[in-house]
Formats: sequence, structure tokens, C-alpha cells
Amino acid sequence: MTQATDQGATIMRWADELGRHSEVPGLLTRTYLTPAHAHAAEQLAQWMREAGMQVRRDAAGNVIGRYEGIVPDAPALLTGSHFDTVRDAGKYDGTLGILLPLACIAEWHRQQRRFPFAIEVIAFAEEEGVRFKATLLGSRAVAGTFDTAVLDKCDEQGQTMREALTASGLDAQALPQAAYTKEQVLAFIEVHIEQGPVLLEENLPLGIVTAISGASRFLVSAIGLAGHAGTVPMHLRRDAAMAAAEIGLYIEKRCSGVPGLVGTVGQWNVPNGAANVVPGMAVFTIDIRAESDTVRLAAVRDVLDAMEQIAERRNVRLEVNPTHAAGSVPCAPWLQQQLGAAIAAFDLPVRHLPSGAGHDAMAIAALTDVAMLFVRCGNGGISHHPDEIMTADDAAQAAAVFSRFVENFMPRHDAEHPTHTLTGH
Amino acid sequence: MTQATDQGATIMRWADELGRHSEVPGLLTRTYLTPAHAHAAEQLAQWMREAGMQVRRDAAGNVIGRYEGIVPDAPALLTGSHFDTVRDAGKYDGTLGILLPLACIAEWHRQQRRFPFAIEVIAFAEEEGVRFKATLLGSRAVAGTFDTAVLDKCDEQGQTMREALTASGLDAQALPQAAYTKEQVLAFIEVHIEQGPVLLEENLPLGIVTAISGASRFLVSAIGLAGHAGTVPMHLRRDAAMAAAEIGLYIEKRCSGVPGLVGTVGQWNVPNGAANVVPGMAVFTIDIRAESDTVRLAAVRDVLDAMEQIAERRNVRLEVNPTHAAGSVPCAPWLQQQLGAAIAAFDLPVRHLPSGAGHDAMAIAALTDVAMLFVRCGNGGISHHPDEIMTADDAAQAAAVFSRFVENFMPRHDAEHPTHTLTGH
Repeated sequence: MTQATDQGATIMRWADELGRHSEVPGLLTRTYLTPAHAHAAEQLAQWMREAGMQVRRDAAGNVIGRYEGIVPDAPALLTGSHFDTVRDAGKYDGTLGILLPLACIAEWHRQQRRFPFAIEVIAFAEEEGVRFKATLLGSRAVAGTFDTAVLDKCDEQGQTMREALTASGLDAQALPQAAYTKEQVLAFIEVHIEQGPVLLEENLPLGIVTAISGASRFLVSAIGLAGHAGTVPMHLRRDAAMAAAEIGLYIEKRCSGVPGLVGTVGQWNVPNGAANVVPGMAVFTIDIRAESDTVRLAAVRDVLDAMEQIAERRNVRLEVNPTHAAGSVPCAPWLQQQLGAAIAAFDLPVRHLPSGAGHDAMAIAALTDVAMLFVRCGNGGISHHPDEIMTADDAAQAAAVFSRFVENFMPRHDAEHPTHTLTGH
Repeated sequence: MTQATDQGATIMRWADELGRHSEVPGLLTRTYLTPAHAHAAEQLAQWMREAGMQVRRDAAGNVIGRYEGIVPDAPALLTGSHFDTVRDAGKYDGTLGILLPLACIAEWHRQQRRFPFAIEVIAFAEEEGVRFKATLLGSRAVAGTFDTAVLDKCDEQGQTMREALTASGLDAQALPQAAYTKEQVLAFIEVHIEQGPVLLEENLPLGIVTAISGASRFLVSAIGLAGHAGTVPMHLRRDAAMAAAEIGLYIEKRCSGVPGLVGTVGQWNVPNGAANVVPGMAVFTIDIRAESDTVRLAAVRDVLDAMEQIAERRNVRLEVNPTHAAGSVPCAPWLQQQLGAAIAAFDLPVRHLPSGAGHDAMAIAALTDVAMLFVRCGNGGISHHPDEIMTADDAAQAAAVFSRFVENFMPRHDAEHPTHTLTGH
């Protein structure tokens, strides 16, 4: 596995080099259309060209490298991920899904090996939503689902996205042409670090994503009655924080033990709380996600019911505001099956798991069938943080599996009608 | 009960008038040694003189009116409360305990009625601790327990308490002379609004305080592990907020159903919490109070034990900092008994209850036996807030009971050795 080991080392080195393109010295912050972002884009374009790809930049700033197939203009297998980051980010989130395919293509290029289809690596210019508070901008442009209302959104300095595009030499008017047609593409596969602890806990380098979980989010205010911590007996209290506590523990219990379901109370606050005052108000968020929309919506219903009962019993009023709702995006079974075969070929267990975080594949699902290959990360699975790590061995293993997947890739029609293909022989 | 009704109306009118002396237009804020505080002191002194009292001002700024007994220089029955306020306060907290005895003495003065003991009404200059972050300054000076280190404390403008005293024409050096000797006093009785809902709920105008509850306070940080709300499965979480929630509900359960015991989590916060992040840290306070120190300390021990177990089970680390601990201050049974007789004389139920809040009587207990008469307040018992209310009827009833208590007052020695007293006839 020397070739894969080399690829692992290359990927890690590239991730280090790309990680130097940051807005802030000493840490990694690379938001959409900043100078650091432009430098990273140039670096990626250079590596793409060195890997034998033709490179273009679309109107959203996505950097796209095309590795031609045996026949010119063949439909393409798409892959890629994003190269923008959160503030004070890790080096592998997004980046891995660009660099890993590049390392594989560089090797095929060296071998002068081509396939019956083209491969396009898309380095998506924006996914995290940091600068303009809108996410997945790069992949939405590619999928043809870009919402032009976002062009008028401002960053913290008051510059609109439209102005930022112009300043970067990009033409917002040309955004519609960034969209692919369905005929141009065969599928999309995204390689990404797991950003969670599941593979690490199970001692597995790789996993196949079954779906990108749907999510329901709420902002809740519990309004009880403030009182003196010494003078209001327990039975006469209407303690808003205790209601929140009971609701939080219910959410934890309801979401535990159900595969693919998670529930989180991430913000908790008693506004102007004081040690000697019974809380009259508590504000908290609820985030419920599941691989299955049915499972998620059942949990949401139970949580809302329980909240009503808890509030009534405690004589506390709740203001419940839904802030977000999105359905699950399934990964295509036929792609999962081919990824599974590639993993099994290395005698590795084929572990399926949902993705609780959003990814570019979510947006690309509007264009074509998608799949995701998760790579284990270390440090308890921490991500969006400088402590985000992964190993060169896992990068090498993932590159070997990705290569095998591509080398054996069978487009959907052929995969689902093998007899038809056979009769064509 | 026309006389008492008149007194009730007088007390309410005086409370309105005194409430106009405020640092802030439109609301009531009267902190120690401000011009508003000085004007209130002058007003009180004037009413005291009109009620036939000799008035002096001690080195702490306390305003003290003495209503002489039948014989000059007789030991005094002390009464009174504070005339400083919290910010945006109610009109009756503290004030009632000054005005109500004044109204009664004004009537005795009109009747030219005197007793075998003097009565001193002390308008304590400072109790709330707002300006110099130190409480009970007036009553501590009277009790001889004033901590001179407080003189160097600064207010928000950087002025020390010593400087503020000088600017008010008071001499910090003379503070020791503000202390009474035990021989000068017979007892202390403080009339105060309940600042809680117990009497209101039970439809009773008055209650007798059994003790001023002791309190234990802690500031706790729970440290777990932050994680992505979508990618960390429930069983792999170390959610600091859920640990805090479980601890909070344990405290609530442990302190419920035990008479005189209360437990409160008043501050709750997940620092930098975000909807999509599993809380890695939660900060909260614990306040446990009880009439009985044994009951309080048993509850504290159980809460600390439960916290340890919860933290261990959830793999969350706790930093527990004790921030305050004070023992219970009992009210003297012989005074409670005489107060009970005065209440029963009006065919009212004699309701005993602890005071969960601190009061001047706490400090005066170092000087002499103390008792407190609680008066019902409305609006669910709210206090330290402009919504703090009480009725003229309750003021009248309390004045009638206070008058009867004083008119029948028997000093401790006489009360506890009635045969001795009888043989003296």
C-alpha cells in the first residue's frame, strides 16, 4: 500500500499548506471572497492543473477541475467539498474532500489512466455561512438552487455579497450559468471527516453516510414568576429554570436509544439571573435531528407535548418559536452499495451512519444522486476547532477506497440494469 | 377600631411621602448617604419629634427617636427597621418597621401615655448593601459588630464609605460609640412586610417569625465536553447543561416538602451557548436556606453528594465554590409568646413562619433578644420591586397588635419569673 501511503502523506501536507491561507494570523479563518480565500483558490487551481485537470472558476467562485474521460465531453462523476472555513477552524473540514480526490487523480494522471467518464473536482467556495449568514452558496450555485435574495445580504462591514463578488472579479449575473444540467453529471460523492466520535469509538477508519439528517430547531422562552429565593416556599414557586431543566432532561431521555436521533439544548440562560432570586424566565434552544424524518417528527411531537404538560403542571408559560426545519437528505442506495464494495475490498467492516451535520452533498442532491464517505477524526471527534485532527493512515485508507470506488464506478443505469449492460457486450 | 384605622391610613400616607425621596425620578432608589437618603432621614426625624420623641443621629447615620418611659433613663424596648432601599424598590420594605411604631407612639403621645420602659425607634441608615456591597451597616453599628474594614470599600464612583460619611457630616471614628450596651436595652422587635406569599396564600394579615433562616450558597461550574449537536450521539455526550439540569431538579426535590427549607438555582448559564453545540460548560448558583441549621446542613450534604454522583455518571467535572454561609438566627421564644398573645387578642390565628430573607434583627441579635412581626404583602408577595404592595387594613391590624404587644410588654426576667414578679406585689 505504498502508493496509498504516499497519497496519505500528500493529502496531509496539502492540508497543512492550504491551512496557512487565513485571514487571521495564528489560527485558521477563511471566509468567502476574502484575500485568504482567493489565495487558497489559486493554490487549489495550481494543484488541479498539476494533477492533469482543466481548471475553471464559476460565477460563485467555485474552483472546478475536470479530468477528462476516455472520450471527450463525457458526463462527469462529481466530487469535492468546500474550502471556506468557520472562524478558528480545523484544517480538514471541507478541505479533505477536495485534496483527497486531487491526490487520486494526480496518480491516475501519472499512470495516464482514464475512465469512461470524466471526473470533476469541485472546490466549493462557500458552505459554512459565516460571512453572509447563508450556507451552501457554492453547492447551491452548482445545483441551480442559488437564492439570489442572498446577493443583497451584508457582511459585518456592510458589504453586500453582490459587491463582494464584483470586488473578486466575479459576475453575479452569471450565477445561473454555474448550474450543471442533469445530463452533464452521473453522481456526486463527497469525502468528509466525520466531525463526530462514532468511527473513533468503534475503531473504524471509514463509514458510509446513509443520509444527511433532517433537523427541527426551536427557540423557547419559559415565563414563570420571579421571587425571593428565601421567602417563596417551594410549593408556591413558578420557577422558569426548573421547567427548562425538566424539559431538557425529557429531550435527552426521548432522544436517547433511538438510532440516528439526537436532541440538544445548546443555549440555556436565565436573563439577569441572581443567586437569591427564583428565576422568572429562562430562554433555551432545542435542536432535534434524525436520519429519518418520521423518527424526527415523532420526537418533536412528543417533546412539544411533554413541554406543554410540564409547563401546565408548573404554571409556567412557554413561548415556542420554530427557527428551522429541514427534511433528511438520503444518500443514494446504489452509490452506498458501490462504496460498500470498495470498503469491503480492503477487508474493512462496512459501517453505515447518518450525518448529523449539513454538507455540500445536501445541496447537490437537487442535481444528482449523492453519496458521502466519512473519514474518522481524532480528539473525540472534535471539529470546527483547531483541535480537529485526522491521521495520514486514515487519509491513505480513504484515498485507496475512493480510488477503488472510482475505478469500479458503474453509473446508475448500468448498475441497476446489469443484464442490459451484459447484453451490450 | 377607628384609632387603628387612622394609624393604618397614616402609615400608608407616610410611606407614600417617604417614597418620594429617591435618587432617581419616577422610581424609588435610596441608597446609603445620598442626598435622597439625607432628606428621608430629616423627614423621619421630624415625624419622630412630632410623635413626642427625642431624636439623635448616630455615627452610622441611623436616626434614633426615644420615647421616654415613666422614669427617665429606663432601659429601652428597641424597634425599627431600615430606610435605605434597593434600586427600583418598593415603598414598604424596611420603611414599614419605622413608620408603624411611630404611628403608635404618636397616639400614646397624644394620650400622654408612658410605660415602665423607654421605647426607641431606630431608623437604620443601611441594610440592603447596595452602595458599598456590605449589608446591615446600620444595625451592625448599633449592635457593636460593625466591621471597620468596610470603611475602605468604594462605591461605583470610587468614593470610600469613610469619605461618604465625612461628606455627610458623620465621623467614622465615632462609630464604636453608636453601639448600645446590653444594659440599655430590653429587647428588639422589628415589624416588616413578609416579602413572600405565605400569609397572602393563607389569608392571614400577620405572622410571627420563628427565625431568620441560615443560608448556604455555592457557585458551580460544570465542565463537560462541547460537541456538534448533530454528530455526537446521545450516549457519547458529556453535556454540562444536562448535568446542571439534573442537579437543579435534585435540589428542587430535596428541598420540597421539608418545612422551612428552600433551595434555589438562581443563575443558570451556558457561556457562549449555540443552538447547534452540545454544551461543554454550564455555570449556576445554589442557594439553600432553612430555619434550622441542622435541616439546612443535611440538605447541603445531600445536594453535594448527589452532585458528585451525577457528575461521575455523566463524566462531567464540577468546580464547586462556597460563596456564603450563615447560621440561622432564632427569634426569642419569650418575645414570640408575647407577640402571639397580642395577635390572639384580636381573634386572629397565630401563624409562625421563618424569614427566608435577612433583616436588621439578624444583626441586633448580637446585642439583645429579637422578635419579628411579619405583615402580609400583596401581588403574590413580590418585594424589592415597585409592584410591592400592602393594604392600609393590614397596616392598621399590625399597628393594633404592635400597640397591644408594647402595652402588655413584660421584660424577659419578669416574663420568665412571674412568681418573683408576683411576690413583688
